[in-house]
Amino acid sequence: MAPTKVLDPENINENIKNLVYAVRGELYIRASELQKEGKKIIFTNVGNPHALGQKPLTFPRQVMALCQAPFLIDDPNVDLLFPADAIARAKLYLSYTSGGLGAYSDSRGLPGIRQEVCDFLLQRDGYPSDPDLIFLTDGASKGVMQLLNIIVRDKKDGILCPIPQYPLYSATIELVGGTLVPYYLNEENNWGLDIKDLRQQVAAARNKGINVRALVFINPGNPTGQCLSESNLRDLIEFCHNENILMLADEVYQQNIYQDERPFLSAKKVLMDLGLPYSKEVELVSFHTVSKGYWGECGQRGGYFELTNIHPKAVDELYKVASISLSPNVPGQIFVGLMVNPPKPNDISYPRYLQESKSILESLRRRAHIMTDGFNSCRNITCNFTEGAMYSFPKVKLPPAAVAAAKAAGKAPDVFYCIKLLEATGISTVPGSGFGQKEGTFHLRTTILPSEEDMPEVMQMFKKFNDEFMSAYEGDLLTNNHHL
Amino acid sequence: MAPTKVLDPENINENIKNLVYAVRGELYIRASELQKEGKKIIFTNVGNPHALGQKPLTFPRQVMALCQAPFLIDDPNVDLLFPADAIARAKLYLSYTSGGLGAYSDSRGLPGIRQEVCDFLLQRDGYPSDPDLIFLTDGASKGVMQLLNIIVRDKKDGILCPIPQYPLYSATIELVGGTLVPYYLNEENNWGLDIKDLRQQVAAARNKGINVRALVFINPGNPTGQCLSESNLRDLIEFCHNENILMLADEVYQQNIYQDERPFLSAKKVLMDLGLPYSKEVELVSFHTVSKGYWGECGQRGGYFELTNIHPKAVDELYKVASISLSPNVPGQIFVGLMVNPPKPNDISYPRYLQESKSILESLRRRAHIMTDGFNSCRNITCNFTEGAMYSFPKVKLPPAAVAAAKAAGKAPDVFYCIKLLEATGISTVPGSGFGQKEGTFHLRTTILPSEEDMPEVMQMFKKFNDEFMSAYEGDLLTNNHHL
Repeated sequence: MAPTKVLDPENINENIKNLVYAVRGELYIRASELQKEGKKIIFTNVGNPHALGQKPLTFPRQVMALCQAPFLIDDPNVDLLFPADAIARAKLYLSYTSGGLGAYSDSRGLPGIRQEVCDFLLQRDGYPSDPDLIFLTDGASKGVMQLLNIIVRDKKDGILCPIPQYPLYSATIELVGGTLVPYYLNEENNWGLDIKDLRQQVAAARNKGINVRALVFINPGNPTGQCLSESNLRDLIEFCHNENILMLADEVYQQNIYQDERPFLSAKKVLMDLGLPYSKEVELVSFHTVSKGYWGECGQRGGYFELTNIHPKAVDELYKVASISLSPNVPGQIFVGLMVNPPKPNDISYPRYLQESKSILESLRRRAHIMTDGFNSCRNITCNFTEGAMYSFPKVKLPPAAVAAAKAAGKAPDVFYCIKLLEATGISTVPGSGFGQKEGTFHLRTTILPSEEDMPEVMQMFKKFNDEFMSAYEGDLLTNNHHL
Repeated sequence: MAPTKVLDPENINENIKNLVYAVRGELYIRASELQKEGKKIIFTNVGNPHALGQKPLTFPRQVMALCQAPFLIDDPNVDLLFPADAIARAKLYLSYTSGGLGAYSDSRGLPGIRQEVCDFLLQRDGYPSDPDLIFLTDGASKGVMQLLNIIVRDKKDGILCPIPQYPLYSATIELVGGTLVPYYLNEENNWGLDIKDLRQQVAAARNKGINVRALVFINPGNPTGQCLSESNLRDLIEFCHNENILMLADEVYQQNIYQDERPFLSAKKVLMDLGLPYSKEVELVSFHTVSKGYWGECGQRGGYFELTNIHPKAVDELYKVASISLSPNVPGQIFVGLMVNPPKPNDISYPRYLQESKSILESLRRRAHIMTDGFNSCRNITCNFTEGAMYSFPKVKLPPAAVAAAKAAGKAPDVFYCIKLLEATGISTVPGSGFGQKEGTFHLRTTILPSEEDMPEVMQMFKKFNDEFMSAYEGDLLTNNHHL
């Protein structure tokens, strides 16, 4: 008999076994299987715009092509395929590197790009930034993982996360061996942040001996789509200051805003506006990415974080850890540069850039409405408007018979519902339990990314499925409704 | 008084504080400072070929430019700038994606590229591979980190590492909270692997209550450059089988071979050749990258690992962890495809590809000789030939007065020597203590990557510095030699 394997499931790192990442969990794996069998799947489980037909912006891709193939710049025919401002920009970015895109950069990223990020932050917030406190990363997720890894020492270290939350946080906290301390967003108040609940959760966690060390907030919200107001942010900062809690500001959806009352405000700006002692004392890490906005360049894996009021020795330690994997991918760094420094009004490529980015953003806004309205027209479903980000997170009131059927099938009720939806329609969503939800409530998350053209059909398929599902599990009542 | 910060150095994850990554450690940081002050620095601390002037291969960059800017493919002038086989290849790779390079791929990477890796492995080794057991990664380092993370449960879990070793291993083992169990390569025997020493180290570690779970080996060696023979590899596999130890095969330098007696043999091939029970029982993970070879595409961050005889549930867990950061960067994946499937003899781009890759490899071979010979002509220095990989790892016999001076300066003797070298010449190396070395011996690691043209001058600067250093610390004896 062969001995037990080293990587026998009994013998692997428990943190890895325990962690759950629902966005690519059971539903995604089932969807991939069905796709292999030939079923048409609409992948709305993850915010992956290009996979659903969104076209990349042209200018950044021109610059990137030239950076990858710098010999084109010297080709006499280059002007036939590339505008002059793309050529100039490629030359600039190549001058930031030592050896082009094939050379490792500094482990925090190319200094020239980090300076562009600082210029962008100054323009956005009105406050200066230090390039040595900007770390470029392979997407924002990698940065979040680096931060949680340095903050968490053991199971007694607690990280406050909104519920519902993006499971990057719950999964990574489990991976690094910490404890997630939940605070609940208020669905009745459009997923608003409730400082009173936050205060209670911190007190309760501390009573249990948890060191509450950091707070995650996502603005605009994922999966909830809410946009925080200035006063919300101020309260949050004051709270964290009083309680000596480090703030992790997930601001990857800062360009995805679908209402005009609350434009995006960065935590950094609100913190600096508050002045002393906050502006010098509150530890803040802010994350951004090229994967969202009207860019949607997920596959390029570009992002950054900015450190504010972080102890210089901790900055050194973060630098040291980043250096183990040598450098973030350099093409992704260039995309960060392009995102923070897009074409300007007098540039040749500006009109096209403006037209492309505006049309994506305006369409997303319309789709946010179509989807919210569509869900709210469905039986037993209520849905807050997607004020920002890329998701709709409707609440599904599941009939007791459906809950019982799920139990019999050994599934959580929302998982049961989402699998039925997938099998009936090909729409691949993520059950609310993957994000956390109040006991006894059930949700699902879907992106608002199916193309505007496809959206009516997607919502119709959904409605038809939901009607039949509710009919099947609400018995007589249903039969009556059905014949109305 | 402000309260202690959350990220006060006292309060951060101890594993992170304890880890050391010398390749970008004290020497690198000092070199970066000197560079900022205007000094010309020759960065030989890290295998980063393009940063020292190596040109990228043309064909892969053409394909990548087209993949990044697919609209060029439809441009009537595309043929003026791109050969037909690059266009065809770009179309093929785009067909592997769902939405081009801007879409997240599967968390293991694009299935089409994983199939190309399997085709390459079949051709290289003569044995089939399964695309679901190939994981594409952001460079090989990220893969190594994923594996060590799942293997190590706590401080009692031991990982065998060669000494000297590439500090990715020591740093990551510290990061994930395990214990490094050293085994010593034999410098007198051209850095050969000594199974007897290995056996003793395992026994000693087990006596101390360490669960020895995995063995790292690097072939060709980093920093040592040795190439393992088939019988070496067979012994190693049998040993791991008998001791129930998982094998981590770092084979990133498989294309970098500078002698003809021992061509590269993969651990997978030797394992399969051994037949039963080994071929079905030994747990093996093999790593490869686009950063080395004649590619040197470090900044693109592309790599893969192959799992052999790993428990299917452990494979699932690795997939789950990979999914937290969604997908490796897609351009890096395409580079992996290009590396494993380069132009073939009848392709338009073949002659150029052949000429470029051959000239890089032949020059590296000549540089390996120039460097070894150069070091061996220096006073108090002996150096094994670089049979493979990209490094030279000479032993420096430091005079007692130099060791005393280092002590007085609060530095390890080899660090002291390397800093003096850096300050005198601008040559940025890594002290042997960063890799591990036998007590009382001192080494440094330098890459063989300075251009062939620059190499004589680099070696001359080194020799001059070393002469003066030895003169200064060997007193009279020295003065005599100096005047010979």
